[in-house]
Amino acid sequence: MYKNLSQEELAEVKIQLENEYQTFKNKGLKLDMSRGKPSSEQLDLSTGLLNSLEGVKSADGTDCRNYGGLDGIKEMKELFASILDVETENVIVGGNSSLNMMYDAIAKAMLLGTLDSEKPWCKEEKIKWLCPSPGYDRHFAICEHFGIEMITVENINGEPDMDKIEELVSSDEAIKGIWCVPIYSNPEGTTYSDDTVRRMARLKPKAKDFRIFWDCAYIIHHLSDTPDKLLNLLEECKATDNPNMVYMFASTSKITFAGSGVAVMVASKENVDFLKKQISIQTIGPDKINQLRHTQFLGDLDGVIAHMEKLRASLEPKFDAVLEILDKEIAPLGIGQWNKPNGGYFISFNGLEGCAKRIVALAKEAGLVITPAGATYPYGNDENDSNIRIAPSVPPISELKEAVELLCVCIKLASCESLLSN
Amino acid sequence: MYKNLSQEELAEVKIQLENEYQTFKNKGLKLDMSRGKPSSEQLDLSTGLLNSLEGVKSADGTDCRNYGGLDGIKEMKELFASILDVETENVIVGGNSSLNMMYDAIAKAMLLGTLDSEKPWCKEEKIKWLCPSPGYDRHFAICEHFGIEMITVENINGEPDMDKIEELVSSDEAIKGIWCVPIYSNPEGTTYSDDTVRRMARLKPKAKDFRIFWDCAYIIHHLSDTPDKLLNLLEECKATDNPNMVYMFASTSKITFAGSGVAVMVASKENVDFLKKQISIQTIGPDKINQLRHTQFLGDLDGVIAHMEKLRASLEPKFDAVLEILDKEIAPLGIGQWNKPNGGYFISFNGLEGCAKRIVALAKEAGLVITPAGATYPYGNDENDSNIRIAPSVPPISELKEAVELLCVCIKLASCESLLSN
Repeated sequence: MYKNLSQEELAEVKIQLENEYQTFKNKGLKLDMSRGKPSSEQLDLSTGLLNSLEGVKSADGTDCRNYGGLDGIKEMKELFASILDVETENVIVGGNSSLNMMYDAIAKAMLLGTLDSEKPWCKEEKIKWLCPSPGYDRHFAICEHFGIEMITVENINGEPDMDKIEELVSSDEAIKGIWCVPIYSNPEGTTYSDDTVRRMARLKPKAKDFRIFWDCAYIIHHLSDTPDKLLNLLEECKATDNPNMVYMFASTSKITFAGSGVAVMVASKENVDFLKKQISIQTIGPDKINQLRHTQFLGDLDGVIAHMEKLRASLEPKFDAVLEILDKEIAPLGIGQWNKPNGGYFISFNGLEGCAKRIVALAKEAGLVITPAGATYPYGNDENDSNIRIAPSVPPISELKEAVELLCVCIKLASCESLLSN
Repeated sequence: MYKNLSQEELAEVKIQLENEYQTFKNKGLKLDMSRGKPSSEQLDLSTGLLNSLEGVKSADGTDCRNYGGLDGIKEMKELFASILDVETENVIVGGNSSLNMMYDAIAKAMLLGTLDSEKPWCKEEKIKWLCPSPGYDRHFAICEHFGIEMITVENINGEPDMDKIEELVSSDEAIKGIWCVPIYSNPEGTTYSDDTVRRMARLKPKAKDFRIFWDCAYIIHHLSDTPDKLLNLLEECKATDNPNMVYMFASTSKITFAGSGVAVMVASKENVDFLKKQISIQTIGPDKINQLRHTQFLGDLDGVIAHMEKLRASLEPKFDAVLEILDKEIAPLGIGQWNKPNGGYFISFNGLEGCAKRIVALAKEAGLVITPAGATYPYGNDENDSNIRIAPSVPPISELKEAVELLCVCIKLASCESLLSN
């Protein structure tokens, strides 16, 4: 444990770490653990998507090559409905990006208002948004872009602080929404408990057009034989007379091709009808051929689950490798904590306060790119400067191990420096 | 000529027409000439897009299956640049819908402003838009959706009334844009003269963030051996110190698959840089696999031109059939005027004043769907009630002929009724 060392002992450790660090630097490495992208190996598992299309008509006879079909072909709606455990009437299939659908949902609310809005949000003096953190940087970027004031709500054991959230939404009419990644969260890999989901459904927001943005990016992305289970918020909301409060999102980005998948939005029938009218002005419809490719390739829910097992077989050893090295190198020193997620794409590392930026900078200087420190907080502002998002998916396992070994040296060195200067 | 007939003669003609109309009605037809969609026969010409992808990497080594590449793969940018005669630095490749890109460009300007805006358009008291008419109903629908006040400017001989436009934009700061379909326009099929394009480039708008939305939907969609030529507005704007005034749009919707094509936006380098920053918040990038399919299938500009010739071979006989029947049935009666376009997807028919709605209603009653009368004007308001958009592309030629025969009976009957009641 570093904290038990004297300043002299720490100074010695530091010299040794600087040598280890220099050794890594001399290798001229070029490693990237910055983003939650699928690896080439994972992408190869969907090669069947590319040149195996049979026919061009959807189940109801629609020619997928031509215009039309605002909310997706029947079988794609059915597949998403089964993945998200909702009805097809709740489903709007989009283009290749669920992030784009989220951006779009906010842009529409800003310009036109939601089903329950008295006026477009851009006509309000101020719009605020709750951001359970650490969270997903691209969610926060959308709020910042649109000038929506973000309120950071620190997670407690990987779950949103519901006391705080209940208090805030019920007292401030300017709060119009909240970002949630409720299963295998980004970056913590945690899943909301049933109690948390039920409390979400029972929120009594002062803004009657408040929306929960429920980003189920990793809804079936398990890395365990005993996967997490997420309660169905749409159902829960129905049961509590708040049927329109939730917008759910998902995509096949990390099921098939990250750049060429199919995205989906799920909401109450009333929301869907309202949004479809807006979408009818925006486009003549998403790419139906790509939807047809996906439903032919994936088949039904069982097909998707079987496919996810293959992806897991590629991804799980990488998580194991990261965790093993962290357990060995960092755990005994008491300079960091992390989670062992049952799914998703990330491991969230919390180092000593004030060390995250230094760790990332050290890594970068030695050729390892990590998600910027602070990125997991609104405005890039991690007050403790301690959270680092580790994304193990992209590098091949040998590179990954080297990257994490290097990362551990950086963690140790930064921690040592910090403890010495205190 | 109907106008030379006495009321008694007209009454007799009418009885005869009612019989003809009834004969059509008895057939129980189900015909559709309402939208500018490619026919199945045309779509079949792009079957090579479906299952012939070679590799998954773009020319610069990008894995098209994964995230990334905000503005399109290199070769798709090059292809669009050659089609639109611009540089690749002016190109932003989008998803499957240029309409969506136009909607999005306006939505962004509303929410965030353009490069040259002092504030977001939604913060202005009022936004107005010039709509040369007849024009494209979906353009007008976007303005109406966003509460942008449309100012109808009647076309003169198929070209925008530049005197009027110059006067309006230079005097009213609320006018922020104009819709143009400058080549093979929707619905008139006309192409802007060099003089018109130059006057567009030389506009001196009072609003310094005024934008010309230049929808080149039919830029290489020729139906003639002596196709129309359109002056390059981007170049012209550059030459006149108004480099940021134009946003150009196009897509492969009517080159390959209408629902699964690739869309593009073209603008000055400055605009592109500005917009890419905004797009980086909105999405992780468009579908690159579909772009790769397109560039592999179409090849270079010569490949596109050769492909368009095949499409023309399918479409041109349909235009000829419509024009032949109109020439035979309507021309001698003096009850309508129309154009013979050198390209595009439409024939614009102007009947006697006050007859368009009646013609469309009669057609509908007999089983023929046409674009609603008025649709070619902002707010659906054709003051003369005379313009009808004929879209000959979808029906097979035998059906098309029957549809136009029926349409001609409807035109005659409505005209006869109108002349009798005057």
